[in-house]
Amino acid sequence: MSSTYGECLKLSIFGQSHGAAIGMTLDGIPAGLPVDIAALNAFLARRAPGQGAHTTARKEADVPEFLSGIVNDHTCGAPIAAMIRNENTRSADYNNLMDRPRPGHADYTAQVKYKGFQDVAGGGHFSGRLTAPLCIAGGLCKQWLSTMGISIHAHISVLGGIADEPLYQDWTCNTPMHVCDDFPVLNKSAGERMLQAIADAKADGDSVGGIIECIVTGLPAGWGDPMFGGMESRIASIVYGIPAVKGIDFGTGFTGSYMRGSENNDVYNIVDGTIRTETNNAGGILGGITNGMPLVFTAAIKPTPSIAKAQQSVSLSKMTAQELQVHGRHDPCIVPRAVPVIEAAAAIAIYDAYLASRKDNL
Amino acid sequence: MSSTYGECLKLSIFGQSHGAAIGMTLDGIPAGLPVDIAALNAFLARRAPGQGAHTTARKEADVPEFLSGIVNDHTCGAPIAAMIRNENTRSADYNNLMDRPRPGHADYTAQVKYKGFQDVAGGGHFSGRLTAPLCIAGGLCKQWLSTMGISIHAHISVLGGIADEPLYQDWTCNTPMHVCDDFPVLNKSAGERMLQAIADAKADGDSVGGIIECIVTGLPAGWGDPMFGGMESRIASIVYGIPAVKGIDFGTGFTGSYMRGSENNDVYNIVDGTIRTETNNAGGILGGITNGMPLVFTAAIKPTPSIAKAQQSVSLSKMTAQELQVHGRHDPCIVPRAVPVIEAAAAIAIYDAYLASRKDNL
Amino acid sequence: MSSTYGECLKLSIFGQSHGAAIGMTLDGIPAGLPVDIAALNAFLARRAPGQGAHTTARKEADVPEFLSGIVNDHTCGAPIAAMIRNENTRSADYNNLMDRPRPGHADYTAQVKYKGFQDVAGGGHFSGRLTAPLCIAGGLCKQWLSTMGISIHAHISVLGGIADEPLYQDWTCNTPMHVCDDFPVLNKSAGERMLQAIADAKADGDSVGGIIECIVTGLPAGWGDPMFGGMESRIASIVYGIPAVKGIDFGTGFTGSYMRGSENNDVYNIVDGTIRTETNNAGGILGGITNGMPLVFTAAIKPTPSIAKAQQSVSLSKMTAQELQVHGRHDPCIVPRAVPVIEAAAAIAIYDAYLASRKDNL
Amino acid sequence: MSSTYGECLKLSIFGQSHGAAIGMTLDGIPAGLPVDIAALNAFLARRAPGQGAHTTARKEADVPEFLSGIVNDHTCGAPIAAMIRNENTRSADYNNLMDRPRPGHADYTAQVKYKGFQDVAGGGHFSGRLTAPLCIAGGLCKQWLSTMGISIHAHISVLGGIADEPLYQDWTCNTPMHVCDDFPVLNKSAGERMLQAIADAKADGDSVGGIIECIVTGLPAGWGDPMFGGMESRIASIVYGIPAVKGIDFGTGFTGSYMRGSENNDVYNIVDGTIRTETNNAGGILGGITNGMPLVFTAAIKPTPSIAKAQQSVSLSKMTAQELQVHGRHDPCIVPRAVPVIEAAAAIAIYDAYLASRKDNL
Repeated sequence: MSSTYGECLKLSIFGQSHGAAIGMTLDGIPAGLPVDIAALNAFLARRAPGQGAHTTARKEADVPEFLSGIVNDHTCGAPIAAMIRNENTRSADYNNLMDRPRPGHADYTAQVKYKGFQDVAGGGHFSGRLTAPLCIAGGLCKQWLSTMGISIHAHISVLGGIADEPLYQDWTCNTPMHVCDDFPVLNKSAGERMLQAIADAKADGDSVGGIIECIVTGLPAGWGDPMFGGMESRIASIVYGIPAVKGIDFGTGFTGSYMRGSENNDVYNIVDGTIRTETNNAGGILGGITNGMPLVFTAAIKPTPSIAKAQQSVSLSKMTAQELQVHGRHDPCIVPRAVPVIEAAAAIAIYDAYLASRKDNL
Repeated sequence: MSSTYGECLKLSIFGQSHGAAIGMTLDGIPAGLPVDIAALNAFLARRAPGQGAHTTARKEADVPEFLSGIVNDHTCGAPIAAMIRNENTRSADYNNLMDRPRPGHADYTAQVKYKGFQDVAGGGHFSGRLTAPLCIAGGLCKQWLSTMGISIHAHISVLGGIADEPLYQDWTCNTPMHVCDDFPVLNKSAGERMLQAIADAKADGDSVGGIIECIVTGLPAGWGDPMFGGMESRIASIVYGIPAVKGIDFGTGFTGSYMRGSENNDVYNIVDGTIRTETNNAGGILGGITNGMPLVFTAAIKPTPSIAKAQQSVSLSKMTAQELQVHGRHDPCIVPRAVPVIEAAAAIAIYDAYLASRKDNL
Repeated sequence: MSSTYGECLKLSIFGQSHGAAIGMTLDGIPAGLPVDIAALNAFLARRAPGQGAHTTARKEADVPEFLSGIVNDHTCGAPIAAMIRNENTRSADYNNLMDRPRPGHADYTAQVKYKGFQDVAGGGHFSGRLTAPLCIAGGLCKQWLSTMGISIHAHISVLGGIADEPLYQDWTCNTPMHVCDDFPVLNKSAGERMLQAIADAKADGDSVGGIIECIVTGLPAGWGDPMFGGMESRIASIVYGIPAVKGIDFGTGFTGSYMRGSENNDVYNIVDGTIRTETNNAGGILGGITNGMPLVFTAAIKPTPSIAKAQQSVSLSKMTAQELQVHGRHDPCIVPRAVPVIEAAAAIAIYDAYLASRKDNL
Repeated sequence: MSSTYGECLKLSIFGQSHGAAIGMTLDGIPAGLPVDIAALNAFLARRAPGQGAHTTARKEADVPEFLSGIVNDHTCGAPIAAMIRNENTRSADYNNLMDRPRPGHADYTAQVKYKGFQDVAGGGHFSGRLTAPLCIAGGLCKQWLSTMGISIHAHISVLGGIADEPLYQDWTCNTPMHVCDDFPVLNKSAGERMLQAIADAKADGDSVGGIIECIVTGLPAGWGDPMFGGMESRIASIVYGIPAVKGIDFGTGFTGSYMRGSENNDVYNIVDGTIRTETNNAGGILGGITNGMPLVFTAAIKPTPSIAKAQQSVSLSKMTAQELQVHGRHDPCIVPRAVPVIEAAAAIAIYDAYLASRKDNL
């Protein structure tokens, strides 16, 4: 476990924020799948820092080098390996964190688990930077799903308490998905107020969190397995691998638990000779298995724990309370950059479920 | 995958609602652990049906028979296997479901996936009845965690829109956990209104859902792994294996995503020579690893999809819309019975993380 | 791990020799596969004891009861579970073994690993009796492979130093496979001398071992994976799960390591429009992947460690040397009964590789 | 599966012979373990080509670059990743192999499985070159086992039909293990005749195979698990991941199957207050679990399939027989270079079993 995911595919992620490189191996992918490197790099650019006023100043190209698994722009059956060299690191910023853990970060828990041997610089293996290799794997899976007519789109549903329009009932997916790649919201005015909320938090030396909604269209019915192999388990276990995610629900989710059965049940109908449900409160999943409707989930992102404001911490060596001032470069809000990461995680889980489903079709 | 869970332990659940038996095997458990069968049966009785006005009329003893793995009331190192014979089944109630899928159930998705070969009676392998073997495994893990000073308690947080008092900030856990075993709430008045909400829904031929909050106290810091091996991934992937769960969050979760970093961060302090956080918004988990505070999560349970009211469905053979009247015995609310199931799932995930953590301590 | 096997299917075996029951769950099998219970019972009868002069006197029907996963004689997609009740046990025979371990058995290693909590009666979970549930799973896989034109046959290649005719180069498989179900050899005279060798060993209070050759015909090219997913790894890891197996090789195996490349290489040819090799020294596997020729392996079975002769052991409590006289009922040779077990293990590994191969065919 | 191994540790190997790089990630290793890079490079040099008259002319430094997981010469808890750039490749040598498969290689099976998308140059992912990353992982595990007093030594037991002295009964391990690092045999005269056999085969445009014996000393009793988690299954499944291995047995193995029980059983005795067996026919494993004696196994290596002699093959496009002349640089015997690879595989399997055993010690 730990940094390995998958049933039919095996994703293994490596690297520390300020180590030599970060990267991934992806085993179990069929041979002969096309790979569009330019499209992948465009996808990766969506999570890259340094693009707007709302992100960290650390600039990185984050263009992966592929080490194996791709020949003539197609998968060759061997494991796919890729890495991104770490550059522009400033480890000196983090020197005091081993003794004085940052609130909301993994500094203290890593110290207990690894007994001082962990790589503390930049959060080490716990850094949000590790979502870059997740996006390499997810960007590839997204391409392969796309050739099957399956699309994955996420947007900022809530940021700093400001809500965008919802998607989950819009199963026709006629709504334009993104106002812009860099800050994906459906409602322009909401987006502008969100950007202001980030600017306000930054001015206060503080940060904001948010909620991301993700919708997957074009899925056939019949993918996923009962019990622990259900689509919810598959997606939740990879989405919770993204730092800062603290909640996930599917369809009406938490809201649905306030409804009555007659409201929340999606009744069936025949439309154009096809079975569909009139609503999509189930978020496209029944019994863990896709029902042919869009798969919809939302993920809660906590506010960035690194804030400029002074906070109370403790000295682990002296066992006394100590004020902590976190330096370094940090996003006042990671939600916009987390949007493609959520898409990537969903793509990996769904492509894995697709591979698993191939066993069932005798 | 599918009906198998675990990294260090391997839980495999079998059975269909109206088949010969349901049961489980649990491999990877150390030898020499005590097993209290009477206490386990008392735990299982908490999820048994037929106890109150709010549950189904189907009565079952649900006392497991252990087939292997336990000698002289201790684990012997061999896999533990147990089964519960199915009795009091009425398969005739379900005869028409293969053609006319119930809204909100797995009938249609199972039909697509298994092409008509699935066991349709009582929901087959998708039945909530499969949570009984989950409770056998979880009840055992709960006992073993208890000997280490770790307690797991869940209560009905919301039912039919009525809220109980919250627990997550009460990390001292001085609050009495349960008003009663059969209907666990902290606030008696809230509990009475919840019971009324169930009665009202039943009178309307309808059902209600709810939210369960679970708290784990006594956990040491340092359990869990980074990324996909984090406590959130471990717990979410088993909790989503419980039918009707459509959401899970940890600590402040979805609520926390509306906060600023300075509000949501839990600052550190030294209390009685021990490191603790002043609040517990993280729900006891940072970077996927326990931080020594209580682990807290909530799970959203959708309203029971089986309702007495007529609903619209389709005939799969005729491909036309058809009204459906669901017969059989069903709970107007499964939330109370799901409370021990949530505790069981948490216990399994945490005991597995405990076993995994033993590798780290050189 | 431990008693769990498989990549796409998940086999979990439970039970102790003298516990309540032995059995298995088999998850991950597609729905809709036919199950012929009578044929399965006939297959299980091949490993049942008590059939001839050469086997133990313990008589057991060993007819499994299926608990789940099969409806109307077809798999239903839910995990298949089956058990066999243990009867005719005589635990008193084993009372002294916890202190005085039998040479060649797991008594001592189980004592160290499980610290006295292990089930010592009849060898507990280490008993050869646990091959019965392996044969349930394997017998089913064998049936499903058979519908694809794939046959698995094993015979006694060597017993008590007496050799049967070899099969591995006979890729046409015109040779009649078995003289009889109960004692499968190709050469009748060799079989008679083997039976005499067993009788001689029994008269001496001793035992004999042997070698089993297994051949799988009808396999398509392209199953199996590189490196640790190769057919050799898949088969070896399950065959070594059979008690008493201490060696396995494929094709010319150990003999081939004495050859030159020009002798051992199988050159290609076109026969009837199909690619085949002129010899089959590779045993049907190149790079871990089937090449369309029969898959051939041999497994070395050590002589039964339980012998009537007095042997030197130690008292674990007194830490002194002690003579040991093993009582109870034991086969002077388990090789004949191991033949269907080897077939079962091969069938499970190959069916799992088949399921895995389905991912590759886009 | 495929290129991923391990229960508690997760080894993932990537790369193709003539791709950008080969490498591995190794997850699940505790933090704080020392890493001696110089000693690792010395170990890797033992399998490096180009050292003597008996090996290929391709020269490669094969010094790995570590990308993550090691800080200040200690493991930091994050996955360890390392890679070796491929240099000195001559892909043009392999241009015709896609149409005309080499006998004894994976060319044909890879063509069937990957439908022409496989990387054919140098054998791609099936190349013996992939044993370099296996040796990185294994060399690290060997170091960590060494700090626990566990040593792993292998030697050439048979080469070109010439036998070295055996080790398996020499449980005191007083015999000097290696005549030299580059060509490890116990008997100098046997070694000289083996070198002559290689020279003779080379002169004939042919190749020779052999058998490697491996002995692991210093192991405690109690590691390994029953059934499929036994030491034999764990070791066999990784050793069969090494190209050209076609057989493996433990202790007396195939030879033992010709013995009687009274000969093959290892009787117990007390020596210096410790339980040991008087012989070690079991190769240190009973019931899949170590018994405190040296763990001993032998692996059969087939003769190098690439030979200079012309061989018969087929044209896959024309479906006609075609003569094939294999060009390129190849060892007339890979057995000497496979010796450290066998040690590496054993080290990984044993270190994984060690980590797994830590769960059992409550």
